[in-house]
Amino acid sequence: MTEPHALIAVEMGIDTHQEPVVFLRADCEVCRAEGFNANTRLQLSLGGRAIIATLNVVTEAVLPPGRVGFSRIAWQRLGLKGGEAVTLSHAPVLHSMSAVRKKIYGHALSAREIDDIIQDISAHRYSDMQIASFVTACVDRLDSGEIIALTRAMVASGKCLSWPDKPQVLDKHCIGGVPGNRTTPIVVAIASAAGLTMPKTSSRAITSPSGTADTMEVLTNVHLGLDQIQATVAQVNACLAWGGAVNLSPADDMLIRIEHALDVDGEGQMVASVLSKKLAAGSTHVLIDIPVGPTAKVRSQPQARHLAHLFDTVGKALGLRLRCLTTRGEEAIGYGIGPAQEALDILAVLNNAPQAPADLRERALFLTGHLLNMASGEELAAAIARARELLASGKAWVQFQRICAAQGGLKAIPQAAFRLELGAGHSGTLLAMDNRRLARLAKLAGAPISPAAGLRLHAKLGQALARGQPLFTLYADSQGELDYAADYYADNQDLFMIGETP
Amino acid sequence: MTEPHALIAVEMGIDTHQEPVVFLRADCEVCRAEGFNANTRLQLSLGGRAIIATLNVVTEAVLPPGRVGFSRIAWQRLGLKGGEAVTLSHAPVLHSMSAVRKKIYGHALSAREIDDIIQDISAHRYSDMQIASFVTACVDRLDSGEIIALTRAMVASGKCLSWPDKPQVLDKHCIGGVPGNRTTPIVVAIASAAGLTMPKTSSRAITSPSGTADTMEVLTNVHLGLDQIQATVAQVNACLAWGGAVNLSPADDMLIRIEHALDVDGEGQMVASVLSKKLAAGSTHVLIDIPVGPTAKVRSQPQARHLAHLFDTVGKALGLRLRCLTTRGEEAIGYGIGPAQEALDILAVLNNAPQAPADLRERALFLTGHLLNMASGEELAAAIARARELLASGKAWVQFQRICAAQGGLKAIPQAAFRLELGAGHSGTLLAMDNRRLARLAKLAGAPISPAAGLRLHAKLGQALARGQPLFTLYADSQGELDYAADYYADNQDLFMIGETP
Repeated sequence: MTEPHALIAVEMGIDTHQEPVVFLRADCEVCRAEGFNANTRLQLSLGGRAIIATLNVVTEAVLPPGRVGFSRIAWQRLGLKGGEAVTLSHAPVLHSMSAVRKKIYGHALSAREIDDIIQDISAHRYSDMQIASFVTACVDRLDSGEIIALTRAMVASGKCLSWPDKPQVLDKHCIGGVPGNRTTPIVVAIASAAGLTMPKTSSRAITSPSGTADTMEVLTNVHLGLDQIQATVAQVNACLAWGGAVNLSPADDMLIRIEHALDVDGEGQMVASVLSKKLAAGSTHVLIDIPVGPTAKVRSQPQARHLAHLFDTVGKALGLRLRCLTTRGEEAIGYGIGPAQEALDILAVLNNAPQAPADLRERALFLTGHLLNMASGEELAAAIARARELLASGKAWVQFQRICAAQGGLKAIPQAAFRLELGAGHSGTLLAMDNRRLARLAKLAGAPISPAAGLRLHAKLGQALARGQPLFTLYADSQGELDYAADYYADNQDLFMIGETP
Repeated sequence: MTEPHALIAVEMGIDTHQEPVVFLRADCEVCRAEGFNANTRLQLSLGGRAIIATLNVVTEAVLPPGRVGFSRIAWQRLGLKGGEAVTLSHAPVLHSMSAVRKKIYGHALSAREIDDIIQDISAHRYSDMQIASFVTACVDRLDSGEIIALTRAMVASGKCLSWPDKPQVLDKHCIGGVPGNRTTPIVVAIASAAGLTMPKTSSRAITSPSGTADTMEVLTNVHLGLDQIQATVAQVNACLAWGGAVNLSPADDMLIRIEHALDVDGEGQMVASVLSKKLAAGSTHVLIDIPVGPTAKVRSQPQARHLAHLFDTVGKALGLRLRCLTTRGEEAIGYGIGPAQEALDILAVLNNAPQAPADLRERALFLTGHLLNMASGEELAAAIARARELLASGKAWVQFQRICAAQGGLKAIPQAAFRLELGAGHSGTLLAMDNRRLARLAKLAGAPISPAAGLRLHAKLGQALARGQPLFTLYADSQGELDYAADYYADNQDLFMIGETP
């Protein structure tokens, strides 16, 4: 019998992101005996734990003999402390890849096959390439039965919240693609002031200049564990937490990471992604906001209707009360883009400040009205009026402060060290803006990694502008980033279309 | 204006295979200013050259400040010597990924779009994930127009051979999946002895225990440049070279690497892959061998006919005279599996040795007959008889020795240090063998990395076996590898089905 091959584990100080890599010397006995070479998939075992990693071969200078080097994520996943003797072998055959191949050839998968794939992905057995292949094969090719199975499998991949005392647990989700559209904190404040239960978990930005979790983090602590979420909701009926800290539908996060690296975003996967998070959070009623616009994620009403139908079908099968709304997505919502700038808009709306962006306020009231209507059945017009009253009276602001207090207290909003105001190149009416390039501009300025970075619009669609009149201000933490964004704008001034009203 | 960011290049001694990786310190000024983080795609420029690489972030101990580390392939591709100041920036937007997304959604691509994708892949601008996505999206979803465009784009990605003095240039290709099916050296020897021009380039094994280039390398030098191929063919009318040394259709090699990592193999890509190599080699007449069997690559006659039809359509459009033959693929051909063992079979056939495998000889004669028939139009039966005569008379063996002499001389076949004979577990008739597991067994013994490793069969289908009668001998270069293969066989004895004749 062959002996198992064991080598001493060493941390390499290399961050290979989410794909675990291990390092072996070219002259390593184990490589030779086992036929390992560059890019072999290996299994590393220690006690009862095992991980799969990709092999990189290194020269003698990099690693002493008898050692196996680990990238940061590989080290963490195997729970190493240093000095352990780790056993190396070929990665076992991934049977669920047969199901992926079946999907590649366009065949429908059974719930069991989908489950096996998601379990293997959750257990980090797939390489990024294999996940990319699965994600690609699923785009535009999942029927509703498969989307339902995928949603269930993703829910089962992680922890779940449950609310035995709450007959109704409300949630909202926006499909995205419109910068500054940060209604969630306002909606949660008003709806929970009205007595609804809203344990809201949100994501950080993946490709946008800010996610709801990034914006809320400017205002309070969002890093809540499952127990803290339960405690906060018990106390104030709502929370505004970062979903990443609680292991809800972790397989979804793995698929999203690859989808974004490829910049593909299949409808079926989007529905499964959104609904798996809601189900894992214990939601019973879900409102979906689908902004439609030429530079938004959804670009036409037929596309929006098709997506809404898919959400309805899958939501119903999974026992959710679900409603989809299409909203206007032609331009950025509010004035601020980037965590701090969006937080300023939120506070202005909650404080009924005169400079508060009307579009952000009205969108939040509209969504909250729908939530109240879904929960209680009251007339929509009456529900929106009730939301407006809760906001105007300051009750929503009080409730927002209570939520922040329960999460660790309201924080001071950071200010950017560098700013640059940019004006209209010529006079005319602001006819259009490109959401995607606007988002890119805020990201180049440093958002969301620098929370204070981003931009503030000084004009909305339909507004008349004189030549040189301020269009927007850029905010950045370094002169370099400010210059970088300004350079991009110099080449992309047409992201704002200024002309004669047609 | 922002300054370009330059850092001093350092070789890290890390082999990341074909995907270039660069390493930056977490505290690096450039990361901060440009918003680089783990897995960002970067462009590294030096003088007029630029490469795209994936970023890995490292700790202070790994890299001095002001330095950027390079993996081996990144270092080679940028042509670094050490100490150069390399400029870092975000990788430019890959416009051809829009076409990949179009294909993901099932739309047909134009020749221009396919060309752009292949150009970007050839220029190493795609990550492995992006190639995986493209490969996945193409499986089973390329129409013949797209396969034609893909073939042309792959030919254009590299060098081409041309034979202005030769009206006919013959080639053969086997789809694969049957171990030991090493007809090519025999076919080339006989056909070129008959006066046909055969500048044969072959690949090394990718997932099999040996490729034609691996087997031929046991017998002679196969590492010929374009000039050497031209010279050898001018001298002896044929060659048996490794295709990897001459940049013929290099994009094909990049796609194949990912297809094998994913274990997907689309029909359209296979046709484009094979024909791009043939066109780049300057072939005019191509014979395709499609073995069909339950454990071969092609498993049914309808599948073989479909593939043959695709080859015919695409070959015709590209101006090739092409013929597909389906052959039996139920069992390994010859006795040897692995480079040296297959070379022994080839020499036995060419020398008309009494122990020469009849199936390998007859298959080679059948294929050569078809080539002669394609080239001259003579009757197939007469052509096969002519091939038989050239072999039996020793003229093919003389011609084979001339080819080897022109390539650098005939070599002595290496012998394995360790061997183990394994017998039948019970008596009966050998009814079936599993090609895939047989190939795996030879690979576990060390083939093709150890050329002497592999196995030699002592029985063919239909043969009666007594209990304990030798079934096959394993060959390996180390006791560990021999044990590893023997262990695998202990768990997989049913790869040989021995029973009563039905």
